[in-house]
Amino acid sequence: MTFAATILTLYPEMFPGPLGVSLAGRALERGDWSCETVQIRDFATDKHRTVDDTPAGGGAGMVLKPDVLGAAIESIADARPILAMTPRGKPITQERIRAIAEGPGVTILCGRFEGFDERLFEHYPQIEQISLADIVLSGGEPAALAILDACIRLLPGVMGAPTSGHEESFEDGLLEYPQYTRPQEWEGRTIPEVLRSGDHAKIAAWRKARSEDDTRLRRPDLWDRYSGDRDQPASGARRKD
Amino acid sequence: MTFAATILTLYPEMFPGPLGVSLAGRALERGDWSCETVQIRDFATDKHRTVDDTPAGGGAGMVLKPDVLGAAIESIADARPILAMTPRGKPITQERIRAIAEGPGVTILCGRFEGFDERLFEHYPQIEQISLADIVLSGGEPAALAILDACIRLLPGVMGAPTSGHEESFEDGLLEYPQYTRPQEWEGRTIPEVLRSGDHAKIAAWRKARSEDDTRLRRPDLWDRYSGDRDQPASGARRKD
Repeated sequence: MTFAATILTLYPEMFPGPLGVSLAGRALERGDWSCETVQIRDFATDKHRTVDDTPAGGGAGMVLKPDVLGAAIESIADARPILAMTPRGKPITQERIRAIAEGPGVTILCGRFEGFDERLFEHYPQIEQISLADIVLSGGEPAALAILDACIRLLPGVMGAPTSGHEESFEDGLLEYPQYTRPQEWEGRTIPEVLRSGDHAKIAAWRKARSEDDTRLRRPDLWDRYSGDRDQPASGARRKD
Repeated sequence: MTFAATILTLYPEMFPGPLGVSLAGRALERGDWSCETVQIRDFATDKHRTVDDTPAGGGAGMVLKPDVLGAAIESIADARPILAMTPRGKPITQERIRAIAEGPGVTILCGRFEGFDERLFEHYPQIEQISLADIVLSGGEPAALAILDACIRLLPGVMGAPTSGHEESFEDGLLEYPQYTRPQEWEGRTIPEVLRSGDHAKIAAWRKARSEDDTRLRRPDLWDRYSGDRDQPASGARRKD
């Protein structure tokens, strides 16, 4: 089954871009996924093909016109999830990526300028407002590329080793453990002894401990959720202790 | 002054990619920023030009060899910040983006496979391990593109209206307020009355209230930080109430 990606954008030439290379590029050639772009400007109705207008109430920048973007959305109405990339959205998670990757595909709306007219989200409540990171991009396109990359690598057959998708950051609520490879000694630093022991149980325990330590130190937010989940009784009521 | 971006990657053909188009593309043509890639493979020393090896202790995937990546890093040693894109890193913030954009440029290391050998970060403590989002990418390249895009739009002269960089999500610790533009009525929905009032103080108050409401509802994590900062007395000691 082909994972169908459709991107609504003013810059279709940005796609597949980096996703036409390497892992994602080979998967695209094989037909594991497809990449369709919709030029938002094609849905403008005036002779200047206007797609944006000044913000109501004033302010810098321009806002995408809801009538134009609405018409573009109507042109691709189907059962796939629709994401709108916006810093006002819900932060993307690996869990959501995995769910999207298991489905038929995704439609991604890329804003430019000052973003979307809020009425778009009232009229189409099925649109998920998604934020990639707490940074402001020039438009949704770089965010869409990252989201698609994360989905594509999870598609069946795309990654060499099917287990690579597990035992990695976020899949179990923890950061991944640190990695090492040859040479055995580099710049006076050696690979930790335990990793050379051949004792699989000891290696697994060391990695779990390092995952937990690093998550606690580097990402207290993830750690709180992880340790909260572990403490949570089956009833679903959060225990306080 | 040109903002100099250098990307260490196994896929130099991914750059400038989407950053060669639109706002970033025009800025590149004008010389507001430069985009140099370093092919990590050029620093491999064996005849097969090996850049990766199996993880010490076992497991799926491959780890970038520290000796090869170390040699690549030595080739570009200068005063610019060095970021390594890894899900084990510190989440990127708009504050860090702004600081980088105000400097001479940035070097970004893009991993593939299972990432970097941990000794790299011990040997080069100046490398910042940075995470774009809590998702796993096929490599650091899509993350590097997003980071660079966020920096480039802040460079002097890149954005049409210089004020666009303020009054937007994260710049003041809040999500941006919702935006509206013409038509006045779309699908039975009108632009909020206040935004058509012409009363700038009322508009500013409405926008601030909506920013606060939306941040509280959508991003309790940002809201906690924002309201904590506001409550914080000048002494720096966090007040508890």
